[in-house]
Amino acid sequence: MIVALSGGIGGAKLALGLARVLPPEELLVVANTGDDFEHYGLTICPDIDTLTYTLAGLDNPVLGWGRADESWAFMDTLAGLGGADWFRLGDRDLALHVLRTHRLRMGESLSAITDDVRRRLGIGPRILPMSDDPVRTRIRSDAGWIDFQDWFVRQRAAPVVRAVEFAGAAAARPQPEALAALGAGPRAVVICPSNPFISIEPILAVPGMRDAILASGAPVVAVSPIIAGQAVKGPTAKMFAELGVAPSAAAVAARYAGLLAGYVMEEGDDAEGIAPRVVRARTLMTTLEDKVALARMVLATADALR
Amino acid sequence: MIVALSGGIGGAKLALGLARVLPPEELLVVANTGDDFEHYGLTICPDIDTLTYTLAGLDNPVLGWGRADESWAFMDTLAGLGGADWFRLGDRDLALHVLRTHRLRMGESLSAITDDVRRRLGIGPRILPMSDDPVRTRIRSDAGWIDFQDWFVRQRAAPVVRAVEFAGAAAARPQPEALAALGAGPRAVVICPSNPFISIEPILAVPGMRDAILASGAPVVAVSPIIAGQAVKGPTAKMFAELGVAPSAAAVAARYAGLLAGYVMEEGDDAEGIAPRVVRARTLMTTLEDKVALARMVLATADALR
Repeated sequence: MIVALSGGIGGAKLALGLARVLPPEELLVVANTGDDFEHYGLTICPDIDTLTYTLAGLDNPVLGWGRADESWAFMDTLAGLGGADWFRLGDRDLALHVLRTHRLRMGESLSAITDDVRRRLGIGPRILPMSDDPVRTRIRSDAGWIDFQDWFVRQRAAPVVRAVEFAGAAAARPQPEALAALGAGPRAVVICPSNPFISIEPILAVPGMRDAILASGAPVVAVSPIIAGQAVKGPTAKMFAELGVAPSAAAVAARYAGLLAGYVMEEGDDAEGIAPRVVRARTLMTTLEDKVALARMVLATADALR
Repeated sequence: MIVALSGGIGGAKLALGLARVLPPEELLVVANTGDDFEHYGLTICPDIDTLTYTLAGLDNPVLGWGRADESWAFMDTLAGLGGADWFRLGDRDLALHVLRTHRLRMGESLSAITDDVRRRLGIGPRILPMSDDPVRTRIRSDAGWIDFQDWFVRQRAAPVVRAVEFAGAAAARPQPEALAALGAGPRAVVICPSNPFISIEPILAVPGMRDAILASGAPVVAVSPIIAGQAVKGPTAKMFAELGVAPSAAAVAARYAGLLAGYVMEEGDDAEGIAPRVVRARTLMTTLEDKVALARMVLATADALR
């Protein structure tokens, strides 16, 4: 079994590559839920949904988020009625939010709902939330603490980041099947090329998760989300700079100190001071072939470290 | 002021006629909320919405319910995810349900939300729920009590009706502005051509509403929803038959015994035994001209009875 820790877009690309090279029963993707939030009474899980849509081939390649073949009649009408439209909910995407919110209220776990949706969309590998308990990432800027999606979407990640916290993490229980997979001696743990601060560290902040990874005995291999000091997408580089660290592949590796056995990073980037075994690869995933090739490289790296 | 009591489709047609012949500040439509229900966590108010869409010119003339220019991406996707699709929620219609549900949860009253939506859609006359407290119509069939929308939509009104109840009505407070309008000596109270059992009687079942109508001193004029023993739309005739009464204009008038001063019914229908003043008119409203002409006839009938 490969246990992959992932946030949204970048992580989902590698998860898709892994899904193409592994038998479905040998991949379990643990999704960050720190980005989850409640909007118009709906529970929205952006990273789970990006993973789900990407693995189902339903992701929107133009927007980079949401569903393919999306329409916006709901959103346009909501705005016309005076509703907020800073978080764009497509007509098709909305079906998942309404269904999930209703089933959560009826007492089902986020894990069960996510797994049912996965099966209905014909996805082979498991996708599971890091926890069924709510964890909510918050950003401290100069104006105080802000909910993550307020900072990320409504304010377009503009406010300077002074600190990040994961509200609820201390009381959250790790997802039991993820924990069981780690306990059963997995082939590897893969940390996908996601934002460390807001995609991977919330997963590691769930009590027991980091210990279970360390105790698994499996090689832990991360892929750098930083190429030539830049994030492929999203605020990773900006967050490093604002938190006082020059953004680099090495800076990401330092966030995972004590965890990594191997680290896959872009050719030409500076590897000085990186403790785990460094493997060079093309880490920019544009085509499906890129994703598959990177997945194979990550697996080979892990297997070489066993 | 004209105070009109109305259910959905038939009532909304006359309400539109009244809205075209009266200054906006002289019409208040009191909407039945007994049809309201919770579906996928959303509070849906079919009669308020039909009135709102009809008065805004946004009603769907093909379906006879919902919004014009509707699309179904949400519904199709929900069904694909295993969701129930017996109650069809259009992409645009959904915006109103999501907005309303969210604002209700935030503590706003149904009256305030309905009134805000009315203004945003450019509707002049007030539309107000009969009560801000939940009232839920239930149908007793041979298989026991069923929620109204389950009976009406999911089971297509097929189960035989043995009894009707308005759960919550005894504890519901009448909408204060409707009560104030009745107390201020209105020009008339109009009972629109809606189903008496499930559209008008829930309104009259709100404690204080019937007394306020009687105490208003205004002539109460109803329009028959039955023409030649048939309902123009909906289960009115079926319900009469199943409750042991031959459906007729006279049978409807008998449901309003003690309330009516005038009764507008179709030419040629039997008026024997009808106590209030009978006025004959074309009551089938196909065109806008029909609606306006019937509204004028209702107002003239009321004025003649003062």
